[in-house]
Amino acid sequence: MKGAHVAEQTTGARPTLEAVAALAGVSRATASRVVNGGAGVRAPLVDRVRQAVEELGYVPNLAARTLVTRRNDAVAVVIAEPEFRIFSDPFFQEQVRGISRELTAHDSQLVLLWVEDQGDHDRIARYLGGGHVDGALAFSLHDEDELAAVLRRAKIPTVLGGRPTDGIGPDMPYVDCDNRGGAREAVRLLVDRGCRTVAHLAGPRDQTSAADRADGWRDALGAPDPDLLCQGDFTAESGARAMAELLERRPDVDGVFAANDLMASGALRVLRERGLRVPEDVAVVGFDDVASIAEHTDPPLTTVRQDIEGMGRLMVRLLMRLLNEHGSGAPAPDPLITPTTLVRRASA
Amino acid sequence: MKGAHVAEQTTGARPTLEAVAALAGVSRATASRVVNGGAGVRAPLVDRVRQAVEELGYVPNLAARTLVTRRNDAVAVVIAEPEFRIFSDPFFQEQVRGISRELTAHDSQLVLLWVEDQGDHDRIARYLGGGHVDGALAFSLHDEDELAAVLRRAKIPTVLGGRPTDGIGPDMPYVDCDNRGGAREAVRLLVDRGCRTVAHLAGPRDQTSAADRADGWRDALGAPDPDLLCQGDFTAESGARAMAELLERRPDVDGVFAANDLMASGALRVLRERGLRVPEDVAVVGFDDVASIAEHTDPPLTTVRQDIEGMGRLMVRLLMRLLNEHGSGAPAPDPLITPTTLVRRASA
Repeated sequence: MKGAHVAEQTTGARPTLEAVAALAGVSRATASRVVNGGAGVRAPLVDRVRQAVEELGYVPNLAARTLVTRRNDAVAVVIAEPEFRIFSDPFFQEQVRGISRELTAHDSQLVLLWVEDQGDHDRIARYLGGGHVDGALAFSLHDEDELAAVLRRAKIPTVLGGRPTDGIGPDMPYVDCDNRGGAREAVRLLVDRGCRTVAHLAGPRDQTSAADRADGWRDALGAPDPDLLCQGDFTAESGARAMAELLERRPDVDGVFAANDLMASGALRVLRERGLRVPEDVAVVGFDDVASIAEHTDPPLTTVRQDIEGMGRLMVRLLMRLLNEHGSGAPAPDPLITPTTLVRRASA
Repeated sequence: MKGAHVAEQTTGARPTLEAVAALAGVSRATASRVVNGGAGVRAPLVDRVRQAVEELGYVPNLAARTLVTRRNDAVAVVIAEPEFRIFSDPFFQEQVRGISRELTAHDSQLVLLWVEDQGDHDRIARYLGGGHVDGALAFSLHDEDELAAVLRRAKIPTVLGGRPTDGIGPDMPYVDCDNRGGAREAVRLLVDRGCRTVAHLAGPRDQTSAADRADGWRDALGAPDPDLLCQGDFTAESGARAMAELLERRPDVDGVFAANDLMASGALRVLRERGLRVPEDVAVVGFDDVASIAEHTDPPLTTVRQDIEGMGRLMVRLLMRLLNEHGSGAPAPDPLITPTTLVRRASA
C-alpha cells in the first residue's frame, strides 16, 4: 500500500478514490460515502477511510462531489426590501458584510437577491426552487410576507434574520437580538436622567423588531399615553415626520426613543430646525449603533447597540448546521438571541 | 382539428405539445424544436407549428423548456469591487437599478455577486461555471482583472460595463459612455468661464473610464503641466487628498475637473475648509451626475451626466441579444457608447 502511495506521487497523478478504498480495505462505494459526509457508514470504517485520505493526500473531485452531495456551495441571501432601502440603510450593509465574511470562511458563494415588488416572488421562487443554492438566509420580512411561503415551497434550508411573526411561520429558525430588553434599557436611561415625557418613534407595525422595541418602551414606562407613540417605518424621513407630529401633539416631550438610528437622525434634524437643544431640551436615544449614522449625527447619538455583523455570521452558522443535518430528521434548531448594549454618546 | 381545439377548451385541460404537433401535421420532436427556438427546422414547418401554437393557445411547460433550452432565466451581476465600495458609491446602486428593472422586464432573476478580495475568484468561477445562470454582466473591472479570465473560463455569455483594457480583453462586448468627450466638454466650460489653471483630480490608473477622462482633460488643454494632475481612486476621501496635494503644488489653481462626483465632493470639502470660495476662487466640475451627491454638495455640483441607469438597461439588452444568438456563430456585437451631457449647477 505504501508502494502505491509512492508510485502515485512519483507519476504526479492525483490519488484516486479507488486508491483510498484499497488502502482502507473498503469498497469504493463505502469510501465515497465517507468522503461525502460519512452518513450510514460504521465508525471504524469511517476512521480507516479518513486515515487513508490523509495518508494519500486525496482531494475529492469537486464536480463529482456536487453530483453525489447535490451541494452547490452557494447560499442565497434574500432581502425582503426594495433596492433603494437596501442601499440607504447601513443596517443591511452590515448584515450582508457579516454573512459574506462567514460564507467565505465556509467557501460558499453568496448570491444576493431582493424583492423590488410583489411581482418578483414567482421568479424568486423559480430560482430558489431550481437547485442553484444549498440554502437561503432571508431578512427584513414583514408580517404575512409572501417571501416566507416562497421559501417554504422551495424546500431549501432557510434561516431568518429577525423573529418571524405568526403570519410568517413561528417554526422557522432565526437569529435576532434582544429588541425588547434593549428598548427597556434605552427608556430607563431617559427616565433616569430626569425625562418626564418619554415618547417613542416606532418602526413598521408589521415587523417584530419594531413591535418588540415598542413593547420595551411600554414595559419601562408602565402604561404610557398612546399619544406618545408616533408611527414611522425605519427610514430617516419617517423619523423626521414622526418627530414633527409628536411636537404638535405633545410639545412637553423631553425624551425620545427612536426605533432605529435612521429614524433618530431624522428626529435630530427636526429638533435642530425647531431650535430645540439636544439633550438639554429633548434627549434622544436610537437603536442599532450603525457607525456611519450614530457617530456622525449632531450631537452624536446615544443608542442601543446590536451586533449586526455578528448576527449575520450567526445566521450562516445556523444555516450550516441545518445543511449538515438536512434530511436527518433532527428537530429545527432553537433561535439564537444576541444581547444588546447601551452606547452612551452626547444625545442622551 | 377545430374539433380537437374546442374539445380541449371544453374539458378545461391545457393544450398539449402533442395537440400542437397534430394540428400542424408534424412530429412531436419537430413541434418541440420550434417551440424552443426553431433551430434546424425548415421555415414552412416553423410557420405551421407557430400557427398551431397560436390557435390552440399552447403555453410551453417552463420546467420542460429549461431542460431543453438549458435556460435558467437568471443572470449574474458581478461587481469587481469590495462590498464597502458598492454600498458607498451611488454609481453602483444606479447601475444595478437599471439592470434590475430591465432583467425584470425579461422575467430573468438578478443574482448579485461581488469580489471582496482575490481569494474569491475560484469560488465565483465555480458558481459561474456551474450552470446556475444564463449569462453575466460585470462591471468596474480593473486592468488585468482576474475576473475577466474567470468569466472567459466559465464560457457564459458576458457583457461588461465600461470599455475593457487590452489586459482584460478587447473582444468582450461592452456598454460605456463617451468618457473622453464628456471630459473635454467639462474642461472647456472651465476654460470658457475664464479659468487659467485647470487641474484634474484623476480616477484609478487601471480603469479605462478614468484614463479616458484624463485624456479628455489633456485634449481640451493641449499639453497641460503634468503637475496639474493629482491621482485619486474614485472615492470621496481620495478626492479630498488629491485636492489638498494640488493646493500645495499649485496654489494658483482656479479650475478643477474631478474624475467623478464623489471625488468632487471630497475636493469641495477641502476647498471649504481652506476658506476658498467655489466657484469664485476655484470652479469645480464633476462626472456622473449621481443625484444623491451632485444635488446635495455645497454648492451644488456642475457635472457631466452619464445615464448610468440607462447603461445598466443597455447591458441587459446586449446580453439578451448574445443569449439569443448563443452558439449561432454570430460575431460579437459592437459596443454601445452613450452620449454625455453637461449639467450646470453652482460650482462652475
